[in-house]
Amino acid sequence: MAIITLATDYGTEDGYAAAVKGVLKTLSPQAEIIDITHGLSSILKTSLVLSRYYLEFPPGTVHLVVIDPTVGSSRRAIAGQSGGRYFVGPDNGIFTNIIENAPQSDWIEIKPDGFPPRPISPTFHGRDIFAPAAASLANEAALDTLGRPIKDPVCFSIPRPAGEPGRITGEIIDIDSFGNLIINIPGDGLGSRPKVVISGTEIAFAMTYADVAQGSPLAYIGSLGFLEIAINMGRAAEFFGATVGSKVVVEL
Amino acid sequence: MAIITLATDYGTEDGYAAAVKGVLKTLSPQAEIIDITHGLSSILKTSLVLSRYYLEFPPGTVHLVVIDPTVGSSRRAIAGQSGGRYFVGPDNGIFTNIIENAPQSDWIEIKPDGFPPRPISPTFHGRDIFAPAAASLANEAALDTLGRPIKDPVCFSIPRPAGEPGRITGEIIDIDSFGNLIINIPGDGLGSRPKVVISGTEIAFAMTYADVAQGSPLAYIGSLGFLEIAINMGRAAEFFGATVGSKVVVEL
Amino acid sequence: MAIITLATDYGTEDGYAAAVKGVLKTLSPQAEIIDITHGLSSILKTSLVLSRYYLEFPPGTVHLVVIDPTVGSSRRAIAGQSGGRYFVGPDNGIFTNIIENAPQSDWIEIKPDGFPPRPISPTFHGRDIFAPAAASLANEAALDTLGRPIKDPVCFSIPRPAGEPGRITGEIIDIDSFGNLIINIPGDGLGSRPKVVISGTEIAFAMTYADVAQGSPLAYIGSLGFLEIAINMGRAAEFFGATVGSKVVVEL
Repeated sequence: MAIITLATDYGTEDGYAAAVKGVLKTLSPQAEIIDITHGLSSILKTSLVLSRYYLEFPPGTVHLVVIDPTVGSSRRAIAGQSGGRYFVGPDNGIFTNIIENAPQSDWIEIKPDGFPPRPISPTFHGRDIFAPAAASLANEAALDTLGRPIKDPVCFSIPRPAGEPGRITGEIIDIDSFGNLIINIPGDGLGSRPKVVISGTEIAFAMTYADVAQGSPLAYIGSLGFLEIAINMGRAAEFFGATVGSKVVVEL
Repeated sequence: MAIITLATDYGTEDGYAAAVKGVLKTLSPQAEIIDITHGLSSILKTSLVLSRYYLEFPPGTVHLVVIDPTVGSSRRAIAGQSGGRYFVGPDNGIFTNIIENAPQSDWIEIKPDGFPPRPISPTFHGRDIFAPAAASLANEAALDTLGRPIKDPVCFSIPRPAGEPGRITGEIIDIDSFGNLIINIPGDGLGSRPKVVISGTEIAFAMTYADVAQGSPLAYIGSLGFLEIAINMGRAAEFFGATVGSKVVVEL
Repeated sequence: MAIITLATDYGTEDGYAAAVKGVLKTLSPQAEIIDITHGLSSILKTSLVLSRYYLEFPPGTVHLVVIDPTVGSSRRAIAGQSGGRYFVGPDNGIFTNIIENAPQSDWIEIKPDGFPPRPISPTFHGRDIFAPAAASLANEAALDTLGRPIKDPVCFSIPRPAGEPGRITGEIIDIDSFGNLIINIPGDGLGSRPKVVISGTEIAFAMTYADVAQGSPLAYIGSLGFLEIAINMGRAAEFFGATVGSKVVVEL
């Protein structure tokens, strides 16, 4: 039984995500639809969020991702494959982190000729192109039957930490719904007692939230392997007035 | 494997939608539950939203819809069928657009006698009447075994555009989560260059958002076949101070 | 086909709930995941909300519940069983109402040794401990193979109404998304015309919302068997300035 995960920015209240689900169930009745979110907020965050879950799903899963502000323009519709996981969505950078993780992944530009014919609205490719493509992949169509291979899916530039001896300067790449700050510094190699500084303040390094007093900040290696900063029972984003892009320094 | 779609105004945080799902899975273990939304906001919008997705699902699907401010009053519990799609919910107008689309649809007033017996709370028919009815339909019970036929399900008056030679005056019937304005003027027959006016401003007519400069308004035929007005990368509702009911004029 | 229900405070926008779902589908491919909510707001409310739906699901269902502010501390990871329903989550009081309802329920402290090995993040037990445990139960692993029995899962003190002859003083234990007030006074034995007083105001007793004029308050026996106070077409919480803990008096 194939799995199709569904992440969009459609919200749930207008019936758009519902229409996508209907198309999926009509074209691939045996597929199981797993809701990821209907609140995608930006292309950069979408790419990061996708990288947090796609490897947890079994091979064969089709990950349908639609945040598509340039729908109907010359931006391409694409699909890809890496390690048996499939991806479908607009070619606007949402798969950047996947391609970063899996440089050998395969990508095609979707050509809708092969699908069961339906009119294509210029403003709703989620329903009219991406859902049929995802259903085809869930039905075990080979990737290359859906279009022509491409080598240049759009990728944005992932911000890298700057290193100098004994010191790494990174930046906040995400703030999650708990107000925790996710930083683009891998946890590997930071040792057991790195000195972490944000906004001129040194932050205690710990394993988990409860290791510091309630209301106190901590730095720790997060569940994705990156440095994070949080407040035990609080919200670090507001505490530090931090935003995506704010700098964080680690002294080893 | 039957599909039951579920749209409610229960939110997800109180466990009410969860109780409905539990009843569905207990009474129809083989049915697949597809979440539509738990944020229905009004009876009028619900009717419109339902019309956006029900035909996308395969025949046999049961669409359970609960926004029920008069629960427990003399309002009827109803179920219907059109083209092999089934509908269950309160008789308060939520199926108006379906009946508009499918005047030959069949409707019954649900009589809970036929269900597995359970106490019926006067304030939670979603759990105690509608979910058992939907589960019965998913189990392939015939519609007419659930109650007695009715010919008069409640329908509200759908606002119609006013036409005069060369000019159509319509109104906004929905504002979606992107701030796009959906207007009750069908796209068919508008020709390739209609003049669209809202709040005294003529709006450029285009195919899709990216056809105009970022921040600029456009009119276009939306994915549901109706005229829409949007702002490329912006929100038309706030830009025009528009609300449901605001007038839009098209000169042909 | 096993059911796993999933209730968390992760939101949907960060990919954390998605990662949990991926682990579940990888370890228990045949299990059906039913979303309850990703907006759990407090341990007390979680316990109450869980008690509203767990008995509606069929025996064999695994209820995975994660609101876990002390993740990674010495708080235990636990799983339990009552009447063939299974529960998995942190030992912080979220199962209090279940244990209240089912004093003979069985509980264990989860020992992750038995699971397929994966690294355990100190801040994401939902993905690394609870999901594998829930998947094991969905795969029909016996509860006692997941860890060692415990007799003392954490329970908070449930507030009880105070009774004196002819008079019960209770308190608001929940405010739902409609602004309805749920009170810790069971409906049984209140008779047909109890006098219900909140904030010095006597409230009309009725069966359902529509029994009183629009905008008027009513007291009624709610769908969970407890006394509730609502406003027909309105929000009682704001109307009365009520909060969880506010007192309500019933004179019989």
